[in-house]
Amino acid sequence: MVVTIKDIAEKVGVSVTTISRVLNNRGYLSDNLKKKVQEAMEELNYQPNEVARSLSRKKSNVFGLIIPDISHPFFGQITKHIEYYAYKNGYKLMLCNSLLNKKKEKEYIELLRASQVDGIIMGSHTMKVEEYMAIKLPLVTLDRRISDTIPYVSSDNYRGGALATKLLLRKRCKKIAYLSGSLQLNLLAKQRHDAFMDQVRGQQIEYVVRQTDLNGFKYREYEPMVRELFQEHPDIDGVFASSDLLALQIIRESRRLGKLIPEELKVVGYDGIQIGGAEDLTTIEQPMQEMGKLAVSRLLQQIGGEETPLETVLPVKLLERGTT
Amino acid sequence: MVVTIKDIAEKVGVSVTTISRVLNNRGYLSDNLKKKVQEAMEELNYQPNEVARSLSRKKSNVFGLIIPDISHPFFGQITKHIEYYAYKNGYKLMLCNSLLNKKKEKEYIELLRASQVDGIIMGSHTMKVEEYMAIKLPLVTLDRRISDTIPYVSSDNYRGGALATKLLLRKRCKKIAYLSGSLQLNLLAKQRHDAFMDQVRGQQIEYVVRQTDLNGFKYREYEPMVRELFQEHPDIDGVFASSDLLALQIIRESRRLGKLIPEELKVVGYDGIQIGGAEDLTTIEQPMQEMGKLAVSRLLQQIGGEETPLETVLPVKLLERGTT
Repeated sequence: MVVTIKDIAEKVGVSVTTISRVLNNRGYLSDNLKKKVQEAMEELNYQPNEVARSLSRKKSNVFGLIIPDISHPFFGQITKHIEYYAYKNGYKLMLCNSLLNKKKEKEYIELLRASQVDGIIMGSHTMKVEEYMAIKLPLVTLDRRISDTIPYVSSDNYRGGALATKLLLRKRCKKIAYLSGSLQLNLLAKQRHDAFMDQVRGQQIEYVVRQTDLNGFKYREYEPMVRELFQEHPDIDGVFASSDLLALQIIRESRRLGKLIPEELKVVGYDGIQIGGAEDLTTIEQPMQEMGKLAVSRLLQQIGGEETPLETVLPVKLLERGTT
Repeated sequence: MVVTIKDIAEKVGVSVTTISRVLNNRGYLSDNLKKKVQEAMEELNYQPNEVARSLSRKKSNVFGLIIPDISHPFFGQITKHIEYYAYKNGYKLMLCNSLLNKKKEKEYIELLRASQVDGIIMGSHTMKVEEYMAIKLPLVTLDRRISDTIPYVSSDNYRGGALATKLLLRKRCKKIAYLSGSLQLNLLAKQRHDAFMDQVRGQQIEYVVRQTDLNGFKYREYEPMVRELFQEHPDIDGVFASSDLLALQIIRESRRLGKLIPEELKVVGYDGIQIGGAEDLTTIEQPMQEMGKLAVSRLLQQIGGEETPLETVLPVKLLERGTT
């Protein structure tokens, strides 16, 4: 015999509507009522268990979002979309900036757990793999693959790196620089570098690879690296910067040096942040809206007990504008 | 007779330490114990009442932050600081983007109330004054004065407007434009416009005032306004833009038109967002870190039952850079 909510309603002695409200956690519900419904469901062996499980678990309808720094335009834009889709699905968003500080990140995870958030979206990671595995909450990472079991959402970094490098080659650059943040951080963004290397190797072209030692996201901190690069290699005629912020710093420095863009120097950025439009910056656009939407949806799938794909890799787009 | 917590401890029959834990809401506390302590406090007429009040209220250690759009760099930067100081004081931050949508803003306030947040920082307001007055939660607004009872934190918009305009006058501009978002929104930012008017009136100078009809914060939406401005007034030689984003759009358009900055056109922005450095943009810097810090501190004062000043107006700074 299949048990329906009508059977539960009869057993508890309330209406079907009330049972439905309990199952969907809608409107005011006394603890006593919830307990009775749960007991009846258990007694009658009502399926699906998911609903029963979510009943016994206190739902907060809150997601935690841990990112390095909300003032970085990439994270600002993606957070906007995450908040939008979370809200659309009845969830609020707890914002946590880790500032890439291990201690703060760890404390935040503990705080989020204590607040009984229903899941966490991680766009920052500084701890050991085991520590993430131990979170035991629905978890989705952004642009980083931490383990074989934690689902992640990213865009196609390898293809983005290849598109950017190929463009510079097609534009007949003779000496190309690849600039990025730390390649040590175990980010998927590292694939942009791999793609760059695969494109330039074996070609009649010179290349330079530079990375900041800094984990920081402070715009100003890129300045010395960029200055030094042009001092050592004044003949660079193409730059692939792995973020638009870094690309803007390149543009600034070349303006200072009187280098004409794109005539003497071609610049490709990465991310597609809104502000890049001000400089007419050629860039690889990450689908931030889709990434935010899918991060939320992967979390909802886990919360709902659905199977969740490990990888969600979205396509990127080359925006050819004035700097190439 | 002054009632001390020792008296309450004796009355309830627990230790002073336990009473102290209850008063500070620390560690595990049964509802029964809290009730008994509260009853004893009432019976003995224990002061201060604030503590009693906070006892009867469930503390969540969460602040709500309602802003128009986290992807706008000004809000991204200020939110970073708000989160930092909230965290430092043991509070988490619930992020709400209103997108200047009345319905969403209202729903968010209801949601925050239902989640029993301890207070709200509002950087967005689209509802009627009475609706804010009815919130009945500790509340601080950013850069907007809603009523005579809701504390606000802003920077000195009038002085900022005066500094920017005076600089353009000092640089001998002959025809100055003032550009801003909607002057209808009842923001303190409107004072920048007032200061501009006070400076240019009665001077041997032409001036133009333009505002976007848009409440939007989308960078691209400024483009048609800026284009039209230069078509109608090709002889403008100075612009005071009431946000750095708007100023960047001016720079872009003048580059398109082949106008030399600062030789033929001088541009002053507003806010002091990090990205403005890329364009070497002269601007009025708002003290975003201090604003974030003080917004949190004004909220904590209200939560602690302390008297909270209505106005907190912080000084701004002229950053003279390459565009003037």
